[in-house]
Amino acid sequence: MDWKSIFAANRESYLQEFVELLSILSVSTDESKVGDVLAAGNWVATRLKKAGIENVEVIPTGPHSCVYGDYLHAPGKPTILIYGHFDVQPPEPLELWDSPAFEPVVKDGKIYARGATDMKGNLLIAVHAVEEMLRQTGSLPVNVKFIFEGQEEIGSRDLGPFVAANHEKLSCDLIVSADGLQWAADRPCLWMATKGMCGLQIDIETADMDLHSGLYGGAVPNALHQLVELLSTLRNYEGRILVDGFYDQVRELTSAEREAFAQVPFDEAKYKASIGIDDLVGEAGFSTYERAWARPTLELNGVWGGYRGDGVKTVIPAKAHAKITCRLVANQEPDDVLASIESHLEKHKPAGVRMTITRAAGKARPYEMPMDHPGVMIAGNVLREVYGTDPYFVRIGGSLPITDMFLQELGAYTVSVGFGLDDERAHSPNEFMRLDAYERGHTVYARLLEELASF
Amino acid sequence: MDWKSIFAANRESYLQEFVELLSILSVSTDESKVGDVLAAGNWVATRLKKAGIENVEVIPTGPHSCVYGDYLHAPGKPTILIYGHFDVQPPEPLELWDSPAFEPVVKDGKIYARGATDMKGNLLIAVHAVEEMLRQTGSLPVNVKFIFEGQEEIGSRDLGPFVAANHEKLSCDLIVSADGLQWAADRPCLWMATKGMCGLQIDIETADMDLHSGLYGGAVPNALHQLVELLSTLRNYEGRILVDGFYDQVRELTSAEREAFAQVPFDEAKYKASIGIDDLVGEAGFSTYERAWARPTLELNGVWGGYRGDGVKTVIPAKAHAKITCRLVANQEPDDVLASIESHLEKHKPAGVRMTITRAAGKARPYEMPMDHPGVMIAGNVLREVYGTDPYFVRIGGSLPITDMFLQELGAYTVSVGFGLDDERAHSPNEFMRLDAYERGHTVYARLLEELASF
Repeated sequence: MDWKSIFAANRESYLQEFVELLSILSVSTDESKVGDVLAAGNWVATRLKKAGIENVEVIPTGPHSCVYGDYLHAPGKPTILIYGHFDVQPPEPLELWDSPAFEPVVKDGKIYARGATDMKGNLLIAVHAVEEMLRQTGSLPVNVKFIFEGQEEIGSRDLGPFVAANHEKLSCDLIVSADGLQWAADRPCLWMATKGMCGLQIDIETADMDLHSGLYGGAVPNALHQLVELLSTLRNYEGRILVDGFYDQVRELTSAEREAFAQVPFDEAKYKASIGIDDLVGEAGFSTYERAWARPTLELNGVWGGYRGDGVKTVIPAKAHAKITCRLVANQEPDDVLASIESHLEKHKPAGVRMTITRAAGKARPYEMPMDHPGVMIAGNVLREVYGTDPYFVRIGGSLPITDMFLQELGAYTVSVGFGLDDERAHSPNEFMRLDAYERGHTVYARLLEELASF
Repeated sequence: MDWKSIFAANRESYLQEFVELLSILSVSTDESKVGDVLAAGNWVATRLKKAGIENVEVIPTGPHSCVYGDYLHAPGKPTILIYGHFDVQPPEPLELWDSPAFEPVVKDGKIYARGATDMKGNLLIAVHAVEEMLRQTGSLPVNVKFIFEGQEEIGSRDLGPFVAANHEKLSCDLIVSADGLQWAADRPCLWMATKGMCGLQIDIETADMDLHSGLYGGAVPNALHQLVELLSTLRNYEGRILVDGFYDQVRELTSAEREAFAQVPFDEAKYKASIGIDDLVGEAGFSTYERAWARPTLELNGVWGGYRGDGVKTVIPAKAHAKITCRLVANQEPDDVLASIESHLEKHKPAGVRMTITRAAGKARPYEMPMDHPGVMIAGNVLREVYGTDPYFVRIGGSLPITDMFLQELGAYTVSVGFGLDDERAHSPNEFMRLDAYERGHTVYARLLEELASF
């Protein structure tokens, strides 16, 4: 089937629908926009029904509803759960937009509006592709379920419990997340892993009050020196983490994975200039991508104590504080990592220190998809075919807790296939999406569903 | 001469004058009190004249005048310059005073008012002693000069230039500072040294902006880790300073000095409980007094960078800062110490760090008086005689720049002889002085001037 031509014929109506959905103020962070988020959910539900999807429901989940629908008429074939979200980031600061955030403008092959690249375009691509396949063939090559949420931008708080309570409804063989990115305009990629996260705060106290350095200097513990001494035991000068057991659960990279990373171009000078760093600093024996994508980290996010004002205050601070977060890789368990750090801190606690360690509330397990997983192979082949070039197999140093949540709850991996680019100002003023990527995306989804039949 | 009985006969008038001087609001920090500070200076000048002192002048020095006077009729005898100040700290917070700060109240052998112990009482003692010696004997056993300033509480800013411009007028063999303390109600002491001071701020930058730990974690320098690494090189875990050359100029304690320190009682449990510390932490091989009084220090006064709010922010901070001050001992030169620290910081600068070092504006040289200096021997003997017990020979870990200034400008050492106690709430509400110490002080000064004739 010549999907490219078929979709091209719908270009105008697809653009019209994109404009329509982008015009809805579905800002999930804004409590006054609860009705707008619901309106977006209702719009999506209506659109799913129009596409021929069955069992469409708008289901209340916390402050914002999610939308479910399915089309389960391919017995013996795999079931694919397509994930996305219809909520968007706040548009502020409004004055930096060249045109109003919710009044889409098409210019130079781009559509400008809040939510264009993140991710109303990607959501529509998946719906259009399914609709057109049904229209053209009267069936779908796989069983399809949709789950679109309205609170991704506020952390998907209620999605986990909803999934946990609806194993049967959402059961599937593979999740396809439409919330993804291309690597470049002409280069697809597949995100193979996201890091987990955990964190803690260290509060130390060495005396009942700050002390005068002229009276006590040299004779009593200084909370800042003791904190510096303690923190200096956590990493070596390159960033190798010195906490006993920290790396024990890390699955080391295979040579295939390292080769895949090495395929991805890296321009060191451009990388350094883009963020204004003088040197790459990281664990010996690993490339920058390996460090950022596949090695666990321990970073000081904040340290403070004593006097921060102008001039001099000859004080011996009695209190000092540090905030630490770790990014974790498979198969590190956040609780185990936290326990090993706590044990390290207790073991290295300097003299005269009263220490309190508080675990951060949020934590996430790392997520990793095997490179030889059939979903990866199939998605990779489809991307190669449509783009005419190999996809990069890359990772995310950040955390996307929903992928691990899906894996834990539904026992299925997630392949992310989306068409934004990282220069398209997601979360910033003048967000946009390239319309050629929007159009190409439809073909990718149609081909992907066709090929997933052999999953 | 039975000075004790002679002074006792003047008890009422001495108390009356104390009340009078304490009633003047000579708050040098308060610009609206310039006239009050001058009134105190005029009161002191008038009092000096009444005592028989000659060449009395009220001399403008910056915002607040100082008072000079002399009585130079002991040819062939040493010249003693008596130093003190008639300005006081602000009385605030007023609501914590049991009686108004400038309405002196006598109760239970104590006089309560701002400036009672710091140091209007001590100033009067010196004037009364000289007056009474003149009255009783028609002469003084030594040549005496007085220099009383009105801006000690704001750092004696204009005293140095005044002394520098008046070498001849102020030339002397010994300075006796009336701005001193007793060790205990029944225990005199002599302050043999004060520490110098210098300081600097370190500002480091590792990137043009804070970076997302999910994108860059593990691959780029973290300003806080680099700062921690740098700061951890400055001291060992006990506080021994690891900066090359830091101790080169330090005059090590003699065994006589260490023995003198060992005479001073030290109650470790009480010391720790008073400030709420769990452990003494300091350089190996030295007692607490030796550390606090005679060893140079390097203390972190403030460290900060990154996120300090509630919860978690997964940021890689691009900037981090530290404030450091050192307390110096003889014969360390502040500029040399700063240079050695700067050189250390440059040498140990971690990878990827752009560093700015800014020297603190204020610095002070250490001051130390030889234990076998005749002024020390004589003052020690007089205190032993009047108190009936040995004085302790102690030091001050803080900085008193004027003693070094006198030494540099006039070539004379300073013996501090005063009668306050550190429980008398100098600088705090309900400041007071014990009247028995006030009365005993007169005898000490008369005997000191007699004995200094043999200096």
